[in-house]
Amino acid sequence: MSYPRVALIGLGLIASSMFWAMRRAGMQGHVAGYARSAETRETARRIGLCDSICDSLEEVVKDADLVVLATPVGVMGRVAETIAPHLKPGATVTDVGSVKKAVIEAVGPHLPESVHFVPAHPMAGTEHSGPEAGFAQLFDNRWCLIVPESADEAAVARLEAFWRALGANTERMDVEHHDLVCAVVSHIPHLIAYTMVGVADDLRRVSDQEVIKFSAAGFRDFTRIAASDPTMWRDVFLTNKEATLEILGRFTEELFALQRAIRTGDGETLFDYFTHTREIRRGILQAGQDTDAPDFGRIKTET
Amino acid sequence: MSYPRVALIGLGLIASSMFWAMRRAGMQGHVAGYARSAETRETARRIGLCDSICDSLEEVVKDADLVVLATPVGVMGRVAETIAPHLKPGATVTDVGSVKKAVIEAVGPHLPESVHFVPAHPMAGTEHSGPEAGFAQLFDNRWCLIVPESADEAAVARLEAFWRALGANTERMDVEHHDLVCAVVSHIPHLIAYTMVGVADDLRRVSDQEVIKFSAAGFRDFTRIAASDPTMWRDVFLTNKEATLEILGRFTEELFALQRAIRTGDGETLFDYFTHTREIRRGILQAGQDTDAPDFGRIKTET
Repeated sequence: MSYPRVALIGLGLIASSMFWAMRRAGMQGHVAGYARSAETRETARRIGLCDSICDSLEEVVKDADLVVLATPVGVMGRVAETIAPHLKPGATVTDVGSVKKAVIEAVGPHLPESVHFVPAHPMAGTEHSGPEAGFAQLFDNRWCLIVPESADEAAVARLEAFWRALGANTERMDVEHHDLVCAVVSHIPHLIAYTMVGVADDLRRVSDQEVIKFSAAGFRDFTRIAASDPTMWRDVFLTNKEATLEILGRFTEELFALQRAIRTGDGETLFDYFTHTREIRRGILQAGQDTDAPDFGRIKTET
Repeated sequence: MSYPRVALIGLGLIASSMFWAMRRAGMQGHVAGYARSAETRETARRIGLCDSICDSLEEVVKDADLVVLATPVGVMGRVAETIAPHLKPGATVTDVGSVKKAVIEAVGPHLPESVHFVPAHPMAGTEHSGPEAGFAQLFDNRWCLIVPESADEAAVARLEAFWRALGANTERMDVEHHDLVCAVVSHIPHLIAYTMVGVADDLRRVSDQEVIKFSAAGFRDFTRIAASDPTMWRDVFLTNKEATLEILGRFTEELFALQRAIRTGDGETLFDYFTHTREIRRGILQAGQDTDAPDFGRIKTET
């Protein structure tokens, strides 16, 4: 079921968590890792990440049955171009990017006919990044969205089984729909959290110290979201431009409607809006996607 | 130091938590409670909330040394008008509202010269509301902002000692500054979380079921914030209109700048912005206002 040899390209939070989750699952295959930065490779070697750490892309993909692109989305095209001549025929190439259309357009054309390209997106993360941020439980009960396009059914099923062994649930999705759903549930929430934290910092009439000292629940959550990896998120917004701008337009419309209600003192509109959003939270609890407990499901470790 | 007789008006999350925190602190005084709804009074009696539950405002404030207005901000003026003739001379009247200028304007004119009015704002809450939502630890290590205006120093110091005994830290603040700081760290973050959840629900191309099923970290946090009490938040926005609209204006400016960077593909602006917001998170962690642990400080119970 699993892959005899796996290559992880880019050793950040996701790839390092994949390695520890593979170990936890008892997978026997060899895992080779590569990172562009010598410092990251050094750290990986020091903490025992992967069975071998390679110093070049050519080396890491050699004989690999599964090649995982886990770099920022913006460099995946260049990586694909470099590894293409060295891929083993019959290998599966996948990625872990948060956007799919741009990845498929950047990576797909470089890959030879002899490999299977099965894009994927594990929806899991923390505000920490780098090879030391990974942990085996990261994907437990999270979704890994698979965007199979025209890939071979056996290759898709094999990758799905791999992700389920790592703790994730899998679901197949059409590429356009994937990018829109993710803009709604992840990309735009991150953008507005970043914006709000930026506003707070920029206000001359409220000191940094006050913002930090009195940061209440709402804002504190935002700062956590806004501490996520800048490179990753820059690439998400640059590469999911269409869906991002669509949802951002809708968001601005709604925000202006609420702003107008505040300005005109229209309490009924505000009350109705806030009552309605409460229902959505209930739906999420009922669907088991979060818990009502004080830790909000973040320390769940069931496998 | 404490008050021999305390009256809690409005038996929601804050007042019920105050009662349990008073008990935990070993305060010996009598606590009388009142809620407008007969059902809430019944629930309070059933769960042992307060030493006595009164059926009228006149009754609950009789002989009280401390009267706490813990209703939605929008009705505090009417409550003050009703209780004014029945207040004991020398009593302290306080409130727990999230805005201060509007409360002072609504409540202040009704109170007799013989009582001390010391507005306060405990910055603590959860997404749950009602008399059964309270717990003794709610205020632990949270800030209670005191807006003393021209109140008697002894009365202010006594209320501060009371809040510290309930677990909170206290700080005095000017009324205008209070409303601006809270707009930044609490009110606007709530408004944009409400908005984002509303947008997600309203999209025709993404089903409710998908929004719920795939709700990732950022959005899940937003739904929790957006599940807060609709009446309370309606009143916050209606009564802190000036600061809310100011910060909302700044937020929109920043969001448009980031939107423009996305549209024009300006990755440098995005990267710099996201890198900068990361620093603010570090400041909050260093200030001890949150933890880096997976539960994000929410299950802290130190007293």
